[in-house]
Amino acid sequence: MPRVNRIDHVAIVVDDIDQALAFWRDGLGLEVSHVEDVPGQQSVVAFLPTEGGDIELVKPTDTDSGVARFLKKRGPGVHHVCLEVDDLQTSLDALQSQGVRLVHAEPVIGTAGKRIAFIHPESTHGVLVELYEMTQQEPEIRIDRARHLADRALAQSQVMAAGVLGFLRGLRSNGADEEPPSKHQS
Amino acid sequence: MPRVNRIDHVAIVVDDIDQALAFWRDGLGLEVSHVEDVPGQQSVVAFLPTEGGDIELVKPTDTDSGVARFLKKRGPGVHHVCLEVDDLQTSLDALQSQGVRLVHAEPVIGTAGKRIAFIHPESTHGVLVELYEMTQQEPEIRIDRARHLADRALAQSQVMAAGVLGFLRGLRSNGADEEPPSKHQS
Repeated sequence: MPRVNRIDHVAIVVDDIDQALAFWRDGLGLEVSHVEDVPGQQSVVAFLPTEGGDIELVKPTDTDSGVARFLKKRGPGVHHVCLEVDDLQTSLDALQSQGVRLVHAEPVIGTAGKRIAFIHPESTHGVLVELYEMTQQEPEIRIDRARHLADRALAQSQVMAAGVLGFLRGLRSNGADEEPPSKHQS
Repeated sequence: MPRVNRIDHVAIVVDDIDQALAFWRDGLGLEVSHVEDVPGQQSVVAFLPTEGGDIELVKPTDTDSGVARFLKKRGPGVHHVCLEVDDLQTSLDALQSQGVRLVHAEPVIGTAGKRIAFIHPESTHGVLVELYEMTQQEPEIRIDRARHLADRALAQSQVMAAGVLGFLRGLRSNGADEEPPSKHQS
Protein backbone atom coordinates (compact mmCIF):
# COMPACT_ATOMS: atom_id res chain seq x y z
CA MET A 1 0.00 0.00 0.00
CA PRO A 2 1.29 3.52 -0.71
CA ARG A 3 2.39 5.64 2.20
CA VAL A 4 1.22 9.20 1.59
CA ASN A 5 3.13 11.81 3.59
CA ARG A 6 1.58 15.09 2.56
CA ILE A 7 -0.05 17.23 -0.09
CA ASP A 8 3.02 18.36 -2.03
CA HIS A 9 1.31 20.83 -4.35
CA VAL A 10 -1.90 21.86 -6.04
CA ALA A 11 -1.46 22.71 -9.73
CA ILE A 12 -3.77 25.26 -11.30
CA VAL A 13 -4.01 25.61 -15.07
CA VAL A 14 -4.27 29.25 -16.21
CA ASP A 15 -4.30 31.00 -19.57
CA ASP A 16 -2.08 33.89 -18.43
CA ILE A 17 0.57 33.57 -15.73
CA ASP A 18 0.89 37.31 -15.09
CA GLN A 19 -2.85 37.77 -14.65
CA ALA A 20 -2.98 34.74 -12.35
CA LEU A 21 -0.10 36.15 -10.28
CA ALA A 22 -2.13 39.33 -9.73
CA PHE A 23 -4.32 37.21 -7.46
CA TRP A 24 -2.11 34.37 -6.24
CA ARG A 25 1.01 36.49 -5.54
CA ASP A 26 -0.14 40.10 -5.20
CA GLY A 27 -3.58 39.38 -3.74
CA LEU A 28 -2.81 36.48 -1.41
CA GLY A 29 0.74 37.57 -0.59
CA LEU A 30 2.39 34.31 -1.66
CA GLU A 31 5.94 34.54 -3.01
CA VAL A 32 7.10 33.13 -6.35
CA SER A 33 10.17 30.95 -5.78
CA HIS A 34 10.81 30.48 -9.49
CA VAL A 35 9.22 30.23 -12.92
CA GLU A 36 10.25 27.23 -15.01
CA ASP A 37 9.80 26.44 -18.67
CA VAL A 38 8.98 22.72 -18.86
CA PRO A 39 9.29 21.74 -22.53
CA GLY A 40 8.57 18.07 -21.75
CA GLN A 41 5.14 19.10 -20.48
CA GLN A 42 4.61 21.95 -22.99
CA SER A 43 4.07 24.44 -20.22
CA VAL A 44 5.48 27.25 -18.11
CA VAL A 45 5.10 26.76 -14.37
CA ALA A 46 5.25 29.39 -11.59
CA PHE A 47 5.97 27.90 -8.14
CA LEU A 48 4.49 29.61 -5.04
CA PRO A 49 5.55 27.76 -1.88
CA THR A 50 3.70 27.90 1.41
CA GLU A 51 4.97 26.38 4.65
CA GLY A 52 2.91 23.30 3.81
CA GLY A 53 2.57 22.53 0.11
CA ASP A 54 3.06 24.65 -3.00
CA ILE A 55 0.65 26.33 -5.35
CA GLU A 56 1.78 25.83 -8.97
CA LEU A 57 0.38 27.96 -11.78
CA VAL A 58 0.65 26.11 -15.09
CA LYS A 59 0.26 27.78 -18.48
CA PRO A 60 0.30 25.55 -21.57
CA THR A 61 2.73 26.62 -24.29
CA ASP A 62 1.10 24.62 -27.09
CA THR A 63 -2.45 23.64 -28.05
CA ASP A 64 -2.19 19.83 -28.14
CA SER A 65 -0.81 18.79 -24.76
CA GLY A 66 -2.95 17.36 -21.98
CA VAL A 67 -2.79 20.63 -20.06
CA ALA A 68 -3.82 22.65 -23.12
CA ARG A 69 -6.76 20.34 -23.82
CA PHE A 70 -7.80 20.50 -20.15
CA LEU A 71 -7.79 24.32 -20.30
CA LYS A 72 -9.76 24.37 -23.54
CA LYS A 73 -12.36 21.91 -22.27
CA ARG A 74 -12.83 23.01 -18.64
CA GLY A 75 -11.35 26.50 -18.42
CA PRO A 76 -8.87 27.65 -15.76
CA GLY A 77 -8.92 25.77 -12.45
CA VAL A 78 -7.31 22.98 -10.47
CA HIS A 79 -5.45 20.69 -12.88
CA HIS A 80 -4.02 18.15 -10.46
CA VAL A 81 -3.20 17.43 -6.81
CA CYS A 82 0.24 16.03 -5.99
CA LEU A 83 0.81 13.73 -3.01
CA GLU A 84 4.24 12.83 -1.67
CA VAL A 85 4.80 9.09 -1.13
CA ASP A 86 7.71 7.19 0.39
CA ASP A 87 8.29 4.64 -2.38
CA LEU A 88 6.84 5.49 -5.76
CA GLN A 89 7.32 2.19 -7.61
CA THR A 90 5.91 0.17 -4.71
CA SER A 91 2.95 2.55 -4.55
CA LEU A 92 2.28 2.19 -8.27
CA ASP A 93 2.51 -1.60 -8.10
CA ALA A 94 0.08 -1.70 -5.16
CA LEU A 95 -2.41 0.59 -6.90
CA GLN A 96 -2.23 -1.36 -10.15
CA SER A 97 -2.83 -4.63 -8.32
CA GLN A 98 -6.06 -3.08 -6.99
CA GLY A 99 -7.23 -2.22 -10.50
CA VAL A 100 -6.50 1.51 -10.24
CA ARG A 101 -6.01 3.04 -13.70
CA LEU A 102 -2.54 4.60 -13.89
CA VAL A 103 -1.32 7.12 -16.45
CA HIS A 104 2.24 5.97 -15.66
CA ALA A 105 2.87 2.43 -14.42
CA GLU A 106 6.50 3.42 -13.81
CA PRO A 107 7.98 6.70 -12.52
CA VAL A 108 8.72 9.41 -15.06
CA ILE A 109 10.83 12.55 -14.61
CA GLY A 110 8.89 15.74 -13.87
CA THR A 111 9.92 19.32 -13.05
CA ALA A 112 13.29 19.75 -11.30
CA GLY A 113 14.20 16.13 -12.03
CA LYS A 114 11.58 14.74 -9.66
CA ARG A 115 10.36 11.14 -9.92
CA ILE A 116 6.61 11.32 -10.43
CA ALA A 117 3.66 9.38 -11.86
CA PHE A 118 0.03 10.26 -12.52
CA ILE A 119 -3.12 8.35 -11.59
CA HIS A 120 -6.05 8.61 -14.01
CA PRO A 121 -9.03 10.66 -12.72
CA GLU A 122 -11.32 7.78 -13.69
CA SER A 123 -10.04 5.91 -10.62
CA THR A 124 -9.93 8.84 -8.18
CA HIS A 125 -13.44 10.33 -8.52
CA GLY A 126 -12.48 13.02 -10.96
CA VAL A 127 -9.13 14.23 -9.62
CA LEU A 128 -5.93 13.95 -11.65
CA VAL A 129 -3.55 12.76 -8.89
CA GLU A 130 0.21 13.01 -9.15
CA LEU A 131 2.37 10.89 -6.87
CA TYR A 132 5.86 12.10 -6.14
CA GLU A 133 8.77 10.51 -4.32
CA MET A 134 10.96 12.79 -2.23
CA THR A 135 14.53 12.69 -3.53
CA GLN A 136 17.67 12.21 -1.42
CA GLN A 137 18.48 15.93 -1.54
CA GLU A 138 15.14 17.12 -0.31
CA PRO A 139 15.06 16.23 3.41
CA GLU A 140 17.38 19.18 4.04
CA ILE A 141 15.03 21.50 2.16
CA ARG A 142 12.20 20.22 4.33
CA ILE A 143 14.23 20.80 7.50
CA ASP A 144 14.81 24.39 6.42
CA ARG A 145 11.08 24.81 5.94
CA ALA A 146 10.31 23.22 9.31
CA ARG A 147 12.82 25.54 10.96
CA HIS A 148 11.26 28.57 9.30
CA LEU A 149 7.82 27.40 10.50
CA ALA A 150 9.08 26.89 14.03
CA ASP A 151 10.77 30.32 14.02
CA ARG A 152 7.47 31.90 13.06
CA ALA A 153 5.59 29.90 15.64
CA LEU A 154 7.99 31.08 18.35
CA ALA A 155 7.48 34.66 17.31
CA GLN A 156 3.69 34.41 17.07
CA SER A 157 2.66 33.74 20.65
CA GLN A 158 3.82 32.55 24.01
CA VAL A 159 1.23 29.75 23.92
CA MET A 160 2.72 28.51 20.68
CA ALA A 161 6.27 28.89 22.05
CA ALA A 162 5.35 26.81 25.08
CA GLY A 163 4.04 24.11 22.76
CA VAL A 164 7.21 24.12 20.67
CA LEU A 165 9.35 23.81 23.80
CA GLY A 166 7.26 20.80 24.85
CA PHE A 167 7.79 19.37 21.38
CA LEU A 168 11.57 19.90 21.65
CA ARG A 169 11.68 18.23 25.06
CA GLY A 170 9.77 15.28 23.64
CA LEU A 171 12.13 15.01 20.68
CA ARG A 172 15.23 15.18 22.86
CA SER A 173 13.81 12.47 25.08
CA ASN A 174 13.55 10.25 21.98
CA GLY A 175 17.32 10.61 21.72
CA ALA A 176 19.99 10.15 24.38
CA ASP A 177 18.55 11.49 27.61
CA GLU A 178 15.19 9.81 28.22
CA GLU A 179 13.28 11.43 31.05
CA PRO A 180 10.16 10.16 32.83
CA PRO A 181 6.97 11.85 31.55
CA SER A 182 6.33 13.44 34.95
CA LYS A 183 9.31 15.77 34.43
CA HIS A 184 7.80 17.19 31.25
CA GLN A 185 5.89 20.42 31.48
CA SER A 186 2.62 20.45 29.58
CA MET B 1 -2.24 41.71 2.66
CA PRO B 2 -3.20 38.16 3.75
CA ARG B 3 -0.56 35.97 5.27
CA VAL B 4 -1.03 32.44 3.92
CA ASN B 5 0.58 29.76 6.08
CA ARG B 6 -0.24 26.51 4.31
CA ILE B 7 -2.63 24.47 2.22
CA ASP B 8 -5.06 23.33 4.91
CA HIS B 9 -7.10 20.95 2.79
CA VAL B 10 -8.28 20.00 -0.67
CA ALA B 11 -12.00 19.22 -0.85
CA ILE B 12 -13.22 16.74 -3.44
CA VAL B 13 -16.91 16.48 -4.30
CA VAL B 14 -18.06 12.89 -4.83
CA ASP B 15 -21.39 11.22 -5.45
CA ASP B 16 -20.68 8.26 -3.15
CA ILE B 17 -18.44 8.49 -0.07
CA ASP B 18 -17.94 4.71 0.25
CA GLN B 19 -16.91 4.33 -3.38
CA ALA B 20 -14.56 7.30 -3.05
CA LEU B 21 -13.01 5.79 0.10
CA ALA B 22 -12.22 2.64 -1.90
CA PHE B 23 -9.56 4.75 -3.63
CA TRP B 24 -8.66 7.52 -1.18
CA ARG B 25 -8.54 5.34 1.94
CA ASP B 26 -8.09 1.74 0.80
CA GLY B 27 -6.07 2.49 -2.34
CA LEU B 28 -3.83 5.32 -1.12
CA GLY B 29 -3.63 4.15 2.48
CA LEU B 30 -4.89 7.41 4.01
CA GLU B 31 -6.82 7.13 7.27
CA VAL B 32 -10.26 8.60 7.90
CA SER B 33 -10.17 10.71 11.08
CA HIS B 34 -13.92 11.25 11.12
CA VAL B 35 -17.04 11.60 8.99
CA GLU B 36 -19.20 14.62 9.72
CA ASP B 37 -22.75 15.50 8.70
CA VAL B 38 -22.72 19.23 7.95
CA PRO B 39 -26.37 20.28 7.68
CA GLY B 40 -25.41 23.96 7.14
CA GLN B 41 -23.61 22.95 3.98
CA GLN B 42 -26.06 20.19 2.99
CA SER B 43 -23.28 17.63 2.84
CA VAL B 44 -21.49 14.74 4.52
CA VAL B 45 -17.71 15.16 4.78
CA ALA B 46 -15.05 12.47 5.32
CA PHE B 47 -11.74 13.88 6.61
CA LEU B 48 -8.48 12.13 5.63
CA PRO B 49 -5.51 13.89 7.24
CA THR B 50 -1.95 13.72 5.95
CA GLU B 51 1.06 15.14 7.77
CA GLY B 52 0.63 18.27 5.66
CA GLY B 53 -2.95 19.15 4.72
CA ASP B 54 -6.13 17.06 4.65
CA ILE B 55 -8.10 15.48 1.86
CA GLU B 56 -11.84 16.03 2.40
CA LEU B 57 -14.43 13.99 0.51
CA VAL B 58 -17.70 15.91 0.28
CA LYS B 59 -21.01 14.32 -0.70
CA PRO B 60 -24.02 16.61 -1.11
CA THR B 61 -27.14 15.58 0.81
CA ASP B 62 -29.57 17.66 -1.21
CA THR B 63 -29.95 18.72 -4.84
CA ASP B 64 -29.99 22.53 -4.52
CA SER B 65 -26.85 23.46 -2.58
CA GLY B 66 -23.73 24.87 -4.21
CA VAL B 67 -21.92 21.55 -3.80
CA ALA B 68 -24.82 19.63 -5.37
CA ARG B 69 -24.96 22.01 -8.33
CA PHE B 70 -21.19 21.79 -8.76
CA LEU B 71 -21.42 17.98 -8.85
CA LYS B 72 -24.30 18.03 -11.32
CA LYS B 73 -22.56 20.51 -13.63
CA ARG B 74 -18.93 19.33 -13.51
CA GLY B 75 -19.04 15.80 -12.09
CA PRO B 76 -16.82 14.55 -9.26
CA GLY B 77 -13.51 16.34 -8.73
CA VAL B 78 -11.76 19.07 -6.76
CA HIS B 79 -14.41 21.38 -5.28
CA HIS B 80 -12.21 23.86 -3.40
CA VAL B 81 -8.75 24.47 -1.99
CA CYS B 82 -8.46 25.79 1.56
CA LEU B 83 -5.58 28.02 2.66
CA GLU B 84 -4.81 28.83 6.29
CA VAL B 85 -4.30 32.54 7.01
CA ASP B 86 -3.24 34.36 10.17
CA ASP B 87 -6.03 36.95 10.35
CA LEU B 88 -9.13 36.21 8.34
CA GLN B 89 -10.99 39.53 8.60
CA THR B 90 -7.84 41.52 7.73
CA SER B 91 -7.24 39.18 4.78
CA LEU B 92 -10.81 39.63 3.51
CA ASP B 93 -10.59 43.42 3.85
CA ALA B 94 -7.30 43.51 1.94
CA LEU B 95 -8.66 41.29 -0.85
CA GLN B 96 -11.85 43.31 -1.15
CA SER B 97 -9.88 46.56 -1.39
CA GLN B 98 -8.07 45.03 -4.38
CA GLY B 99 -11.35 44.27 -6.12
CA VAL B 100 -11.28 40.51 -5.45
CA ARG B 101 -14.81 39.06 -5.57
CA LEU B 102 -15.60 37.44 -2.21
CA VAL B 103 -18.36 34.95 -1.48
CA HIS B 104 -18.15 36.01 2.18
CA ALA B 105 -16.97 39.52 3.09
CA GLU B 106 -16.97 38.45 6.75
CA PRO B 107 -16.01 35.12 8.35
CA VAL B 108 -18.68 32.44 8.60
CA ILE B 109 -18.64 29.26 10.70
CA GLY B 110 -17.64 26.09 8.83
CA THR B 111 -17.08 22.48 9.90
CA ALA B 112 -15.91 21.96 13.50
CA GLY B 113 -16.72 25.59 14.36
CA LYS B 114 -13.92 26.96 12.20
CA ARG B 115 -13.91 30.58 11.02
CA ILE B 116 -13.81 30.49 7.24
CA ALA B 117 -14.69 32.50 4.13
CA PHE B 118 -14.77 31.70 0.43
CA ILE B 119 -13.31 33.64 -2.49
CA HIS B 120 -15.21 33.48 -5.77
CA PRO B 121 -13.48 31.47 -8.55
CA GLU B 122 -14.02 34.40 -10.90
CA SER B 123 -11.16 36.19 -9.10
CA THR B 124 -8.83 33.21 -8.65
CA HIS B 125 -8.61 31.79 -12.18
CA GLY B 126 -11.22 29.12 -11.73
CA VAL B 127 -10.48 27.83 -8.22
CA LEU B 128 -12.99 28.11 -5.40
CA VAL B 129 -10.65 29.19 -2.57
CA GLU B 130 -11.53 28.88 1.09
CA LEU B 131 -9.58 30.92 3.64
CA TYR B 132 -9.48 29.62 7.17
CA GLU B 133 -8.11 31.13 10.36
CA MET B 134 -6.44 28.80 12.82
CA THR B 135 -8.30 28.87 16.14
CA GLN B 136 -6.72 29.26 19.59
CA GLN B 137 -7.02 25.54 20.30
CA GLU B 138 -5.29 24.38 17.18
CA PRO B 139 -1.59 25.26 17.73
CA GLU B 140 -1.38 22.27 20.06
CA ILE B 141 -2.89 20.00 17.42
CA ARG B 142 -0.30 21.30 14.97
CA ILE B 143 2.50 20.67 17.46
CA ASP B 144 1.30 17.09 17.81
CA ARG B 145 1.41 16.71 14.04
CA ALA B 146 4.87 18.30 13.83
CA ARG B 147 6.08 15.95 16.53
CA HIS B 148 4.66 12.94 14.71
CA LEU B 149 6.37 14.14 11.52
CA ALA B 150 9.69 14.62 13.33
CA ASP B 151 9.39 11.17 14.93
CA ARG B 152 8.94 9.62 11.49
CA ALA B 153 11.80 11.65 10.09
CA LEU B 154 14.09 10.42 12.85
CA ALA B 155 13.10 6.84 12.13
CA GLN B 156 13.47 7.15 8.36
CA SER B 157 17.15 7.87 7.92
CA GLN B 158 20.33 9.00 9.61
CA VAL B 159 20.68 11.85 7.09
CA MET B 160 17.29 13.12 8.10
CA ALA B 161 18.04 12.67 11.80
CA ALA B 162 21.23 14.70 11.43
CA GLY B 163 19.21 17.48 9.85
CA VAL B 164 16.64 17.42 12.65
CA LEU B 165 19.42 17.66 15.24
CA GLY B 166 20.82 20.71 13.41
CA PHE B 167 17.32 22.16 13.40
CA LEU B 168 16.99 21.57 17.17
CA ARG B 169 20.35 23.21 17.83
CA GLY B 170 19.27 26.22 15.79
CA LEU B 171 15.98 26.46 17.64
CA ARG B 172 17.59 26.20 21.07
CA SER B 173 20.01 28.97 20.14
CA ASN B 174 16.97 31.16 19.45
CA GLY B 175 16.01 30.65 23.08
CA ALA B 176 18.03 31.09 26.26
CA ASP B 177 21.50 29.87 25.45
CA GLU B 178 22.68 31.77 22.37
CA GLU B 179 25.86 30.33 20.87
CA PRO B 180 28.09 31.79 18.18
CA PRO B 181 27.38 30.25 14.74
CA SER B 182 30.90 28.77 14.59
CA LYS B 183 29.98 26.28 17.32
CA HIS B 184 27.11 24.88 15.22
CA GLN B 185 27.76 21.79 13.18
CA SER B 186 26.38 21.98 9.70
